[in-house]
Parts: sequence; C-alpha cells; structure tokens
Amino acid sequence: MFQKKADTALPIMDALAHRWSGRAYDEDRPVDQASLTKILEAARWTPSCFNEQPWRMVLFDRFQDPEAFEMALSCLVEANQTWAKAAPILMLAAAETLFGNGNTNRWASYDTGAAIMSLSIEATHLGLMVHQMGGFKAAEIKTRLSIPDHVDCLTMIAIGYQLEKERIPEDLITREEGERSRKPLSDLLFKGTWGDARD
Amino acid sequence: MFQKKADTALPIMDALAHRWSGRAYDEDRPVDQASLTKILEAARWTPSCFNEQPWRMVLFDRFQDPEAFEMALSCLVEANQTWAKAAPILMLAAAETLFGNGNTNRWASYDTGAAIMSLSIEATHLGLMVHQMGGFKAAEIKTRLSIPDHVDCLTMIAIGYQLEKERIPEDLITREEGERSRKPLSDLLFKGTWGDARD
Repeated sequence: MFQKKADTALPIMDALAHRWSGRAYDEDRPVDQASLTKILEAARWTPSCFNEQPWRMVLFDRFQDPEAFEMALSCLVEANQTWAKAAPILMLAAAETLFGNGNTNRWASYDTGAAIMSLSIEATHLGLMVHQMGGFKAAEIKTRLSIPDHVDCLTMIAIGYQLEKERIPEDLITREEGERSRKPLSDLLFKGTWGDARD
Repeated sequence: MFQKKADTALPIMDALAHRWSGRAYDEDRPVDQASLTKILEAARWTPSCFNEQPWRMVLFDRFQDPEAFEMALSCLVEANQTWAKAAPILMLAAAETLFGNGNTNRWASYDTGAAIMSLSIEATHLGLMVHQMGGFKAAEIKTRLSIPDHVDCLTMIAIGYQLEKERIPEDLITREEGERSRKPLSDLLFKGTWGDARD
C-alpha cells in the first residue's frame, strides 16, 4: 500500500491520517458487499440538522452495471475520466435542499459533506481509497437521471482499492507521489474573535 | 461512559459507531491542549475542492476566556443555552464562500461539514463529546465578531467530556436516554438511477 500520512503536530487516528485522495485504482478488484455496506452505514449514522439526513447517494457499479457506470463516467470532466475509469465504483453525492416541511435546509450541503466524510473514513479503515470530485457536469447528470430541481448534485466519488505502487502507470506516478499540503492552523482557527490567530 | 452505539447492519469503526450528540457535559473538566490540537489537526487534513480548505473555526474557551464564551453562548437559541453552558468549549464553524480568486465556491459548506465531521470523529476517539447546533443566531454572532459578508456562519459546536450517567440532571436524562434513529438505507441510496432503491 502506497501511503502518504498527514503531517500532523500530534498523532491522530490512522483512518484520518492515512485518508488520501489518490488516483491510481486497481481496475480488476471490485468492492465486496460487506465493505460497501459498512461505508454506507458510516454515512447513514452521520449527524444532521434536525436529523433530516439530506444526503442522497447514487451508486454506479462497473462490475454489476457497466452501462450505468459508463454514463456516470461520461459526466466527469475529461481530466477525471482518464483515471476514474479504473475505479470499480462511482457514486454521486447529492443534497435534498428542502426539509420535509418544504422549507429550505441551509445545512443540506454541510450535512452531505459530513456524510461523505464519514463514508471516506470508514473506507480508509477498510483499505479502500476514496476520491471526491467537484469536476463533473452536474447539470448533465441531473438531466440524465431526472433528478428533481431541489436536489443539489455536489460531488462524484471514486471508490476502490489502490493499485500497488509498482503497477501505477507512468502518467500518474508523479502526481501520486506529490506531497500533501494544508494551510497552517493559524489560517483556519481564531480564538474568541474573528481573524485573531491562535497561539 | 454513557454510550449509545449506532445500530448498523455490519460493525463499523468504534469512533463512528459511538459518536453521538449528547447534551450532558461535565462542566468541571476542561479539554486538554493535546486533545484540542488533535481534533483541530483532524479538521485541517480534511479534503476539499481544489484543496481550498474553506472551513474557519472560532474557539470560545470557558476556562481561558469566560467573556468570549459568554458572548458565544448568548448567541445560541435559548433551548441550547440551557445545556451548552456546561461545555468547556464552544466553537463556531464558518465557511469562506469565495475561492482565493474571488469566484464563488459552491462546495464551501460541503467541505466545512466534512471538516467538522473529521473533528468529531477524532474527538469521539479521544473520549470527547461533540454536539453541533444549527440553533443559533448567525446574524448576531456575525455582527458581534465583525465577520465578513462572504463568510457563512454554519454551526455552533459544543465540545467537552460527557457527564457520568449518575450525575446527569433530571431535566436532561430522558432526552439523553432516547433512542438514536436514522432513515433506512433505501431512502438514501439509489443504484444506477435516481429513486431506484438499492436491494
């Protein structure tokens, strides 16, 4: 397994430190049903505003339904298609933007992001690799699947097993080996008042 | 520790299964610096669209800065103030809605929800309890902290240690003991096409 552990000030859980959005998927290896059930359960038990659970997921399984998978793949921007085609699963994450009572749910996106994060962490724990993409034609997949207007198509997600390092194709290896980076905490965290960086 | 494990079809990671938004905080127990660093690192290493990291967090520490904490507490709706006042930490989670280049980031909320989920999972792993609230006066805290217009104040978050079950006050215990519930997966997951529930 090709790992790129997060560079944290203090150690954090393995499944968080090792989660990493790679692009080199093993195209021969499907995701087994038990693992799929577990990552979906992880998403399902995410907290949400008024427990509304606004996340909706559409699964495209290359082994079980190649036609649906191809349709989903064709809705990615081309740069993502080149590597995502090897993933055994693509998933659309969408948010129901209305509460059951018809009011707008301003946390629909926020809660959906949380659910897919839960899914990603359980997936990492199980040895799977998850890569979320904003780069897809949201309007097109919405039309193709007749998704209602009040549903916001947010990300397409590749799920599968990572390819062993020796088998990663040359056009991917440089990118895969690139360093992971994040802003310093002082850019993200303030104390007591806005813009006042933490010590 | 008063646990309410998620009822999943197959076992998932402990930190996911045991995460639960309780209301009974131990008011005497501060969050130590190492735990705080770890949960913030968990948030920091969350993935985001174009690695923009739009989440911003403002920390209100009741032990270190009671005045700022009181201000934050006063911005919660009253029903939340009654229990959240015992938490040692309140945190505002906000999303920078513009990319660095000035364009609107339509994943700002989604990515912020993911970051706070990462934080919550690491917190659960460390024995902390996290409770996110949509019930707060977003406009008021925005004014009080002079937060720029393009920043969306999304949730207020209580962080601390759970009170032992025997010490949970009577007015909270029924709610704390209530069953956790979620929609069935068939409401959330479709396969290949919208609205087609998974087997």
